[in-house]
Amino acid sequence: MNSRSTELKLIEIIKKEVSSETPLTSVITDIGDDCVILRPTKEADLVVTKDCMVEGVHFDLSYTTPYFIGRKLATSNLSDIGAAGGRPLWALLGLGFRSDFSTAFYQSFFKGLLSSLKREGVGLVGGDTVSAKERLFFSLTLIGEVPKGKFLSRAKARPGDRIFVSGPLGDSQGGLFLLQNRIKPPIPRNPLKYLIKSHLDPSYPMGLGRRLLELDLASSSIDVSDGLSTDLWHICERSKVRCIIEESAIPISRPLRLLSKAAHVRPLDFAISGGEDFEIIWTTPPHKAQEVKKVASKLLKRPPYEIGYVEEGKGVFLKDSRGKLREIGRLGYEHR
Amino acid sequence: MNSRSTELKLIEIIKKEVSSETPLTSVITDIGDDCVILRPTKEADLVVTKDCMVEGVHFDLSYTTPYFIGRKLATSNLSDIGAAGGRPLWALLGLGFRSDFSTAFYQSFFKGLLSSLKREGVGLVGGDTVSAKERLFFSLTLIGEVPKGKFLSRAKARPGDRIFVSGPLGDSQGGLFLLQNRIKPPIPRNPLKYLIKSHLDPSYPMGLGRRLLELDLASSSIDVSDGLSTDLWHICERSKVRCIIEESAIPISRPLRLLSKAAHVRPLDFAISGGEDFEIIWTTPPHKAQEVKKVASKLLKRPPYEIGYVEEGKGVFLKDSRGKLREIGRLGYEHR
Repeated sequence: MNSRSTELKLIEIIKKEVSSETPLTSVITDIGDDCVILRPTKEADLVVTKDCMVEGVHFDLSYTTPYFIGRKLATSNLSDIGAAGGRPLWALLGLGFRSDFSTAFYQSFFKGLLSSLKREGVGLVGGDTVSAKERLFFSLTLIGEVPKGKFLSRAKARPGDRIFVSGPLGDSQGGLFLLQNRIKPPIPRNPLKYLIKSHLDPSYPMGLGRRLLELDLASSSIDVSDGLSTDLWHICERSKVRCIIEESAIPISRPLRLLSKAAHVRPLDFAISGGEDFEIIWTTPPHKAQEVKKVASKLLKRPPYEIGYVEEGKGVFLKDSRGKLREIGRLGYEHR
Repeated sequence: MNSRSTELKLIEIIKKEVSSETPLTSVITDIGDDCVILRPTKEADLVVTKDCMVEGVHFDLSYTTPYFIGRKLATSNLSDIGAAGGRPLWALLGLGFRSDFSTAFYQSFFKGLLSSLKREGVGLVGGDTVSAKERLFFSLTLIGEVPKGKFLSRAKARPGDRIFVSGPLGDSQGGLFLLQNRIKPPIPRNPLKYLIKSHLDPSYPMGLGRRLLELDLASSSIDVSDGLSTDLWHICERSKVRCIIEESAIPISRPLRLLSKAAHVRPLDFAISGGEDFEIIWTTPPHKAQEVKKVASKLLKRPPYEIGYVEEGKGVFLKDSRGKLREIGRLGYEHR
């Protein structure tokens, strides 16, 4: 196909896939226009995020599928809105296409993207479709709402606060390790599948940020997109505090332990600098620690992990079993 | 530079350039977070658009500069919001960078982008910066407001309405023709410069759409991004009408006439299928035609051009001096 006929085909696919969605009463004009008119709730602020994904940088077609690319594009944006305590509502997609890919490829991408957006009640309401020549790219803008004047920021962690994380860390990085190594370390099939899924189609704690915001149970929060050390570093920098993480408290899944052993990589290396886990890290004042555990447990259907505490100072520190501190700085996962 | 150090440099540039802007009271958190919190006006709907630009597809670095790329990226989005009658407020930028370009290149891009956004009071409030490897891309999302329940759509042109355009057509396409042809047709320096500027740094009728909406003077409107024939075709299709354009009434600038003569291309070919003029085409009921001319003249500081009328039917037609109709269909400018 040439790029014009690809573009027209893509617009057809979008119209078909999108019109099969429940119509959103808050969308006043449809996707065919250059602009979309949206009606926010009166007593709400907007929360907006934008994440891009580039072929060969954020994903590799030798080991992922268009369906999973669509899902992960949605997840990385939904996770940002979620960690801010927001409710996602509308998405706009910038799609840089390759003309040498089939219609089926893009249909599968849209099925993935829309399956994730739909689950959260988000409508794909607009965007732009352009030729990207030899390298696919996607740019998703997600618009949501937070109660007026309320949102979870990175800037309000206070000394004494406890640090929690919603789930195990490093699984996504472990999955990537498996996908990138042609010779798979000898681990059983199920853990292997679990880790690979953690990278290709990571889950995230849907609704947790909003619940923490509604009940005023978190002083700060962030999603783990760049890795525990980098993301906590953002909280430290913005809140002007330091974070102490108990090495032994960092949640590591059984599959990741198996992989670490087989591959001779310390599990902590995956967990500390691995990105794209899309769990939420948050801080809670000590007198609310019991309550936040109860609330998060109910929502997550398992307890959250308390991994450390906030102090006066600067930087992110790991505390080993003998109480020795080691600064871990900003070692997060970096896209090539 | 490698892509990580480029990314950090870029974030530095963004922070510096953006913080030198007037702070927006409607922005609650700053650009350092994954999300931005924005406060819309109570009695407004949102109007949102997104346009992407790709190196070698929408611009060519052999004849444009990063400054002009930034300006045009802003213009194409501002023009969409303007044609909908909206007031632009906030922008988010997806930047796909090349590591082999200098810091000065990106500084210049941001200067261009911000100069255009600033002029309209728009704040660059967020976005994402990623490696694009060998081909730059930009994805801008622009969010604005319209009065609740009111906006200029493409769907409400009615038989009998007059068709107006805010300025001459085809100049941008003429400029592109000059830029793409190594052997320049023999036309004087000033018309040549005018046409090249029309392509590299097109102007647009700032505020016109909003004025037409406020005074309820337009039944439909669209900006000329793809060319007169394609853009009018959108109005026809959405409004279920046909448009008759008087061939002799299509505004052609003197520089474009000079170029057409020297290059042996009919000026109408530039004007009808040339895109990126960013003028507004709109329709007005006949009893408001005099008033809309007055209002537009005042704002544009010259009269708008009345180029035709709306009838029952389908399609876009050109009417020659003998009254003969010719369907011109959807011949607009297409990016390669």
